[in-house]
Amino acid sequence: MINLSQTKVFGGWHKQYQHTSTVLNCDMRFAIFLPETAGPTSPVPVLYWLSGLTCTDENFMQKAAAFKKAAELGIAIVAPDTSPRGEGVPDDPDGKYDFGLGAGFYLNATQEPWKKHYQMYSYVVNELPELIETYFPVTPDKAISGHSMGGHGALTIGINNPEDYVSISAFSPICHPSIVPWGEKAFRHYLGEDKTTWQPYDAVSLINQHPVTTPILVDQGDADGFLHEQLKPETLLAAAKANNVPLTLRMQPGYDHSYFFIQTFIEEHLEFHAEHLRRDAW
Amino acid sequence: MINLSQTKVFGGWHKQYQHTSTVLNCDMRFAIFLPETAGPTSPVPVLYWLSGLTCTDENFMQKAAAFKKAAELGIAIVAPDTSPRGEGVPDDPDGKYDFGLGAGFYLNATQEPWKKHYQMYSYVVNELPELIETYFPVTPDKAISGHSMGGHGALTIGINNPEDYVSISAFSPICHPSIVPWGEKAFRHYLGEDKTTWQPYDAVSLINQHPVTTPILVDQGDADGFLHEQLKPETLLAAAKANNVPLTLRMQPGYDHSYFFIQTFIEEHLEFHAEHLRRDAW
Repeated sequence: MINLSQTKVFGGWHKQYQHTSTVLNCDMRFAIFLPETAGPTSPVPVLYWLSGLTCTDENFMQKAAAFKKAAELGIAIVAPDTSPRGEGVPDDPDGKYDFGLGAGFYLNATQEPWKKHYQMYSYVVNELPELIETYFPVTPDKAISGHSMGGHGALTIGINNPEDYVSISAFSPICHPSIVPWGEKAFRHYLGEDKTTWQPYDAVSLINQHPVTTPILVDQGDADGFLHEQLKPETLLAAAKANNVPLTLRMQPGYDHSYFFIQTFIEEHLEFHAEHLRRDAW
Repeated sequence: MINLSQTKVFGGWHKQYQHTSTVLNCDMRFAIFLPETAGPTSPVPVLYWLSGLTCTDENFMQKAAAFKKAAELGIAIVAPDTSPRGEGVPDDPDGKYDFGLGAGFYLNATQEPWKKHYQMYSYVVNELPELIETYFPVTPDKAISGHSMGGHGALTIGINNPEDYVSISAFSPICHPSIVPWGEKAFRHYLGEDKTTWQPYDAVSLINQHPVTTPILVDQGDADGFLHEQLKPETLLAAAKANNVPLTLRMQPGYDHSYFFIQTFIEEHLEFHAEHLRRDAW
């Protein structure tokens, strides 16, 4: 593992690393924020942040304004990249932003030529936490959050692994990818035409099949240009209600899909996760 | 004036505009943050933020994490670009980052081929505030801050115009540009070989010639790679002490030259300016 950068921020550290991923078959970069209080005798819990289409490990870390509150609450934040990268990793042949590089959709591809590298589900659920828990002063206590495609990732990974993540949150998530253009395109290529294989990666389908008791917080701006065609939070809310899943959906008037929206509410998400991480630690 | 974007953030608005600058002879872009409380019957004071080498209006607005506190304090923030731009605006013939485009040094050039466009001093001191005060719900109360080259800009513009700016702050400013590589290169090209013409743009020289009573706050990271060769805050501190200028210089252990450093302390700078802006309004 190579340390690419380390920068002091709010008394703690933002660091970037490169490592060779076994499940993704390529070199990957991730970033971690470690609060000042984190140390071998005082490990801290971890919030995993999954970014949206086109992002890398840097977008959230530079634009979300999350570190002041994370430092105060004593929470580490880990931000992986959004897809495998590098020579030999196939990209969308049409060069579009919504598939291929920067658009791994946090699933395990089963189709050629994608399946060799596009295994972001296993990377986020298994390989990355193992690495983080081996090399950094953290506890096994985990929460998960994300934005847009990463909100989809946080919901599906959190719901599929209720014993691993104490709480789930999302900003502007793709709630029901099986029925929207971004999700249909990605799932068809990565998973094939059999839609039963899509269900484990669709938050609405998951909630209907496996209602969890994990608390879920979702913020969605009502001025978000992707709201009606791609995001569909009303489908998630209906599924949660029908299955008694503890979901709070907050429609935020006037807010769009940007990091300005995220920075406005990220401190409330951190407080939400901190409450459940503390409860888990008792 | 063309509105290029508007995004809700912390209840207020981040907006970008393009306008034709008379003093710079080109089209310019700037960004403004307006807190929710700003309106025709409740105008707010303005903090002008000057960015460093290579930046545009976007760096501070996206990375500084300033809006939560600015919203709370009821302060607008205006971020201009760092140089004239566009077709016909000459750039460093060597293509370096430290001169020409993105490196206007907040001065009025007197030399060919620079003087037609490189008039950032007049733009920031006169043209931009006139525009802001005409079109936005702001008071004439102004404070000024900046980073690196923009810290130099904030110091020199603030000290040269003590009646216009109630307080001055800077992160990692180029304190004594006349004697450091970045400043010498820029001043020689923009202003010529006669070093007496450099003095109005050198904070240390200015303080020695025109001691002001404007309160000044400077934060400087001691892990900043540019500290000893380019920034030299000790020269500013010595000049301020010798002339009884109310300067507070805080050396911040472990911090570097990045926006992670800025976001760590920006709220304290906003509180510093708010205190003096309130006092001015009484």
